[in-house]
Amino acid sequence: MSELKGAAIFAQSGGPTPVINASAAGVITEALKAGPITHVYGSAHGIKGMLDDVIYDMSKEDKRELELLRTTPSSALGSARYKLKHFEDNDADYIKILKLFRKYNIRYMFFNGGNDSMDTCNKVGAYFKSVGYECRVMGVPKTVDNDLWDSDHCPGFGSAAKYVSTACMEIALDAKVYDTGMVIILEIMGRNAGWLTASSALASYKGLGPDLIYLPELPFSIGKFLEEVESIYNATGNVIVAVSEGVRDEKGVYVPEMNYQMLAQDSFGHTQLGGAASVLGSIIKQHMKVKVRPIEFSLLQRCAAHCASKTDADEAFLAGQTAVRHALEGKSGYMVGFERAPGGEYICNTKLLDVSVVANKEKKIPREWINEAGNGVNQHYIDYALPLIKGESNIVIENGLPRFAKLKKVRAVV
Amino acid sequence: MSELKGAAIFAQSGGPTPVINASAAGVITEALKAGPITHVYGSAHGIKGMLDDVIYDMSKEDKRELELLRTTPSSALGSARYKLKHFEDNDADYIKILKLFRKYNIRYMFFNGGNDSMDTCNKVGAYFKSVGYECRVMGVPKTVDNDLWDSDHCPGFGSAAKYVSTACMEIALDAKVYDTGMVIILEIMGRNAGWLTASSALASYKGLGPDLIYLPELPFSIGKFLEEVESIYNATGNVIVAVSEGVRDEKGVYVPEMNYQMLAQDSFGHTQLGGAASVLGSIIKQHMKVKVRPIEFSLLQRCAAHCASKTDADEAFLAGQTAVRHALEGKSGYMVGFERAPGGEYICNTKLLDVSVVANKEKKIPREWINEAGNGVNQHYIDYALPLIKGESNIVIENGLPRFAKLKKVRAVV
Repeated sequence: MSELKGAAIFAQSGGPTPVINASAAGVITEALKAGPITHVYGSAHGIKGMLDDVIYDMSKEDKRELELLRTTPSSALGSARYKLKHFEDNDADYIKILKLFRKYNIRYMFFNGGNDSMDTCNKVGAYFKSVGYECRVMGVPKTVDNDLWDSDHCPGFGSAAKYVSTACMEIALDAKVYDTGMVIILEIMGRNAGWLTASSALASYKGLGPDLIYLPELPFSIGKFLEEVESIYNATGNVIVAVSEGVRDEKGVYVPEMNYQMLAQDSFGHTQLGGAASVLGSIIKQHMKVKVRPIEFSLLQRCAAHCASKTDADEAFLAGQTAVRHALEGKSGYMVGFERAPGGEYICNTKLLDVSVVANKEKKIPREWINEAGNGVNQHYIDYALPLIKGESNIVIENGLPRFAKLKKVRAVV
Repeated sequence: MSELKGAAIFAQSGGPTPVINASAAGVITEALKAGPITHVYGSAHGIKGMLDDVIYDMSKEDKRELELLRTTPSSALGSARYKLKHFEDNDADYIKILKLFRKYNIRYMFFNGGNDSMDTCNKVGAYFKSVGYECRVMGVPKTVDNDLWDSDHCPGFGSAAKYVSTACMEIALDAKVYDTGMVIILEIMGRNAGWLTASSALASYKGLGPDLIYLPELPFSIGKFLEEVESIYNATGNVIVAVSEGVRDEKGVYVPEMNYQMLAQDSFGHTQLGGAASVLGSIIKQHMKVKVRPIEFSLLQRCAAHCASKTDADEAFLAGQTAVRHALEGKSGYMVGFERAPGGEYICNTKLLDVSVVANKEKKIPREWINEAGNGVNQHYIDYALPLIKGESNIVIENGLPRFAKLKKVRAVV
């Protein structure tokens, strides 16, 4: 173990989750008490703060607010979607980053995000190595999509899945309240991987959830979809469908882009546009002449901290803490991943994954966890996902509403 | 106090709420222990069960499931939207209802719903009087719209408001995560009264909520709306708007029906349709060329029991209980309403309101609670609404997901 003295920087990137700030709390509190770490900085809006020198001094924050980060959704330091070029092609950004790291003597970088963020870690780490700047770069995972390679699951997923499945149960009770027919179409996040859409099956497993689930892992056929919806509607008069925003046909065409002739036209002759749920709703209305309600879970599925999973929030904190501990031990170029201990009881351990691998691969639902008809998941998925949504986050409530962390965001000076 | 021996029937009508079943629990448990009440029945799908003789024996339900009703959303017995004709014009339905009441010797009717349901109570009560059938008819209030006349507030509103304001806080944190511009438009229920839409102001009061709130109480102008959104966007780069589904212009035209020429057209030349948020979103995109995200809270705002207000759930139970107690005392033709005790501390008392009055009037937000610009509410509203969302409902969780009541619904026999 080689001791490296210097400052640490933490950044959040990509789409928010209910627990990304729990990882922030893990990194920041652990780094603040680490002997070799001289200062703890936060970067505003991911990598952008490092490019523009918008850096916060995390030691200026109240302890209570840092603790409240554990139950505060979204990215307290701000996020960004910014893809670095390869430094061999264009090193302008890298030169800026290096200048900033030298200015603040930053020797530890903790980057919290999904595969694009691991790509950033990978590139920055490689650049530092190429110019001989000693800095330990660690990735902290985050994504409601749950698609990070070789990690059993990702922080953010359990909470989003708890929200999706709880909301599905409640909507199912609401949808069946009248004795008149109804088709409900729920649109759930997940462009390439259907993990979150599949979590609606946890509601079905409880007797209150979608009858049909369509995932981006399999090609989507409008004809098959209509047939399956119609068949259940004819039998029960009530159908709930969960559909991933990313479903597409065999040629890779997403639902909203599909042939407009197929789509429903309103009484003025205009074609209905919108997301997958809204378009599929129009098609059903057109073909089946029944009442349809498309519901897009939209932002709430990735920010509903009031319905977060305690398991997830605790693991998100642990991932942040673990990244700091490994960096202190000398590790660099790794993301903290999770693995499940063998046996019936759910025990989650951490492991280290090479960021260069995580950056370029996506984890999808295995075909054998999807039912034969391709319109639902089986017990393998339930057994996998159920432990991840367990426990209720200890969100602090004041006057009937959540008390979320308010950071001072004091600009760092050197 | 005149004792009337006979059976009681309970029915749920109109749109579901997170706490209508709490009122059901109040009525059913109180009626089951009342000496003069010989049987307690539930009617399937509101008045429809009384017309079609689909009647459940509530004494056959497990005590634990009846207790779980207190935290189970939606209408456990099913609901209906069915308007009775005046019996002077057509008494066919009334003859059926009377026949059913005679068959089961029903002498107490508890009808849980909004103003349409109070209209049903009023008409059925008047008919029974006209034919000399002794039956005490009591209304139990329910509506997330909070528009029942002369009641300080209505069961269902506090929970829906807690969900709306919590979700607004979370969405506000999410919406401000990037440093790029964004307009978010939240569409909230309320066709004629803006109580629920205004509850988003509780989030703003906490520093995280809409910048602009548009209510159906005031005429809506697209021109003024665009100006106000643009002005905030130019100052901050980020605007959150809450809009009631029922906003309409001075001539009473709802947003989705407004002049199509004004509306945005997509690249294929098609006009975008949809609800208020989606249409307003298109207009903003067209005029301001900025990123817009319309979010419709849809069914979840009226069924999110996982975010119910304990105050609301307890009051809903109390309303049901109180209706039974007053009926036993000989009262008929009343709805249980709420009044706030004078003084600073929130204390809610019940009172009786004539169903014929409640049936025909709507309570709207007073003009003096809305700000001068007509795009928000002031402290009067906050002081009014804040006590109603307090306390967290004790929802039972099993394996990470809610455990909702499952009624056996055993058909009654005589």
